Parts: sequence; structure tokens; C-alpha cells
Amino acid sequence: MKIGIIGSGVVGQTLGTKWLQLGHDVAIGTRDPAKIDDKKMMATSLREWRAQTGERGKIVSFQEAAAFGDVLVNATGGTVSIEALRAAGADKVGGKVLMDISNELDHSRGMPPRPLASDERCVAEKIQAAFPNLKVVKTLNTIGAVVMVNPKGVAGGDHTVFLSGNDAGAKAQVADLLKAMGWTDILDLGDISSARGPEMYMAMWLRLWGATRTGNINIKVQR
Amino acid sequence: MKIGIIGSGVVGQTLGTKWLQLGHDVAIGTRDPAKIDDKKMMATSLREWRAQTGERGKIVSFQEAAAFGDVLVNATGGTVSIEALRAAGADKVGGKVLMDISNELDHSRGMPPRPLASDERCVAEKIQAAFPNLKVVKTLNTIGAVVMVNPKGVAGGDHTVFLSGNDAGAKAQVADLLKAMGWTDILDLGDISSARGPEMYMAMWLRLWGATRTGNINIKVQR
Repeated sequence: MKIGIIGSGVVGQTLGTKWLQLGHDVAIGTRDPAKIDDKKMMATSLREWRAQTGERGKIVSFQEAAAFGDVLVNATGGTVSIEALRAAGADKVGGKVLMDISNELDHSRGMPPRPLASDERCVAEKIQAAFPNLKVVKTLNTIGAVVMVNPKGVAGGDHTVFLSGNDAGAKAQVADLLKAMGWTDILDLGDISSARGPEMYMAMWLRLWGATRTGNINIKVQR
Repeated sequence: MKIGIIGSGVVGQTLGTKWLQLGHDVAIGTRDPAKIDDKKMMATSLREWRAQTGERGKIVSFQEAAAFGDVLVNATGGTVSIEALRAAGADKVGGKVLMDISNELDHSRGMPPRPLASDERCVAEKIQAAFPNLKVVKTLNTIGAVVMVNPKGVAGGDHTVFLSGNDAGAKAQVADLLKAMGWTDILDLGDISSARGPEMYMAMWLRLWGATRTGNINIKVQR
């Protein structure tokens, strides 16, 4: 599968590497592909990333990534996602699936960042409204990048990842991508409005991170 | 121990019954103790509740409950908690521990209720600021009433309850009360500001409830 990732930080890089390992073609879209040597927060430069993939990873513009992927991924920060997807021309790529992994966080006051989500402020809903052609599926935003691609690294994989979206086929396709990464407990929360739950949960994740002093955590929904 | 519960709905009644069974003295404070026959949402009338306790449960005013308890419990809805605690004279009862179990929910648009929590809107912090004499400990607000008093009923009890509060001794006392109810995984999130996490999590709980069609759920923090 061709996967186009919008956003080149630690989440985009980590997922890109994993999907290359699983045999997919991956293009990471970045705001300015010329800035290939810039250091990323908690991640390597894109030149280093590409070298680590044996030069198989593509580094392109937002627009090229959106055109490239059969499936698209929003790995930008939630506060800039709409603008990044506009720059990517995501309204002109047809009815593609967009995995939305973003969280709206305010980093302006230092660590920990301030979660901006509320019942009236949900990135996934805003993206779906702004880009009605896309089949938006919220997922993986409740989990740190390392755990996203290696769920077995926490409690043998016995924990939960969530799906929210209006299109059942798109959710099934995303579920298959998650299963291939080792996810076994995939819980469909409902339509795109249900993404308010996992987006507001980020506030809890930040407190769990603070209390346990590790991002190598996740929750299991016991039911 | 003498436990004074402010709020006589399903949460107050369920906890009151459990603590009576465990040998504590319990007074439930209600806005108008004369309205002992009013039906409560998802709960029995207070007359029925008292009968079910073998007439051991006390039904009193908010103010009498606050004076009665060695430990106090806020089991009112989060939107009215400050006003209820003012009516209870909670500023005049000295340095008591207050377990705060509330969530701010807007029921005006029907089910599911709309969660009002945000990083800037946290009931527990508001209570602690309004009643600096109290030792506020946020807990149990992430769990349905039935599971609060019977954690073993979900996955054999293998799931997590949270504590937030500024006073270590108060948190230890609340942890002892939780252990006596069967809780084994009690996670201290930090000071009272960390209650923002579990309060915003309520939005996730509502979506989990919608997706699983049961309130007989909880999360285990895998770490």
C-alpha cells in the first residue's frame, strides 16, 4: 500500500519506519522538504530518518504526500492540522481515507503541554467538516509513538486502541493496518463525533505520563 | 468511621449502602430531607434506601451531613457542587477530608449528557479553591456507581482508580477506604490540578459506555 503521511515529527517518522518495515511504500510530507537537516523535537532529522530506512523513505511536500498515498495520515499537531491539510490540497485528492492521529496541545507554556480539547473542540470533527471528501478515521492519538508501532512492548499488547469515523469501510481498512502492527484490542467508538472521547482523554494521558514518568503506557478497557 | 455524604442520588446511595455494610456510620445529606419519597434518577427514593439499610442509614440535611462526617463525600453533580457545599457550610467544618466524586455534565440536551470539563474547568480545583480548609481528594469519578463499590465485578478487579489531591495523608486515608471496597490498583496522579485528567476522561467514559452498551466497565492502566 502507498501511505502518505502529512507531518514529519516523531509520530510521522515512527509510523513511516514501521510501515516501510511491513512492506508498504511511504512518503512523508513536510512543510519545506529542503529543510531536510533540521532537528525535530524528540526525533531525528529527516535526512537521518531516510538513511535509517535504507533510503526507502520518501521525503516530499505536504501536497506530494497527499497525492501519493492510497491512505493518508495526519501526523501534524492538532492546532495546525486544518492549515496543513489545506496546504496539502487534501480537498482535491478524492475520497481517500485519512487516519487522524493529532491532538490539540498548547506548547507555549512549556512542559507538560496544555490540552485544548473539549466537547466543543475536536480536531477530527473539524477536519471531517472542512474536507467532506475525506473518510476521516480518528485513531492512535491516545498512545505515544513508540507504543503505536510496538503494542506488544506494553503488557504483552493487552491494551486498547480506538477508532472513530463515519465510514465503516474506512474503519475496517484502518483496523487492518493496526492489526498488522500488532494491535489486537481495537474498539470502534462510533461516528466521527465520538473522537471527542479520545481527544479529551489526552488530558488523562498527560497525567498518567506525569505520574508514571514513562510514555510506555496505555489503557486496557476492561469489559 | 463516620462518613457524611453530600448528595443523595445513585452515587451517594450506592456508596452509603456499601460503607454501612463495611461497618461505618453513614449520613446522606440531601437538599430537602422532607422529600424522602421523591424518586431519584436511576436510584430508589431515600425512604426505600433507608429501608434497604435496615434503617441504619441516616437521612439528613447537607449541613448535618457535613457536620456528621469524619470524612465527607461530594456526590452531587459537578454543576451544583460548589453551591451544595456552601449550603452544607463546608467552610465551617474544619480541615476534613472531602472525597470529590463529581463530574460536570450538562443533561439539558438529553442522553448522553454533555461533558463540560476542560483544562480550564475542573470541579475539584474549584472546590479546593473555594474551601481551602478542606483536604479535597478527587477519586472514583471515572467509574459507574455499581463498579465503584464492586470492582471485582469487572475483570476480577484488574483495573485502575485514581487519586488527585494536595494532602498526602488525605490521599492515604481515601486509599484505605478504596482498598476496603476491593480496589487494588490505586494510582496517585499528583496534586489537585491533576484531577483535570480524570475529569476530562469522563468524555471518554461516555463514549465507552455508548460503544459497549454497559456501564460495567473500567480502564486498567498498563505500565
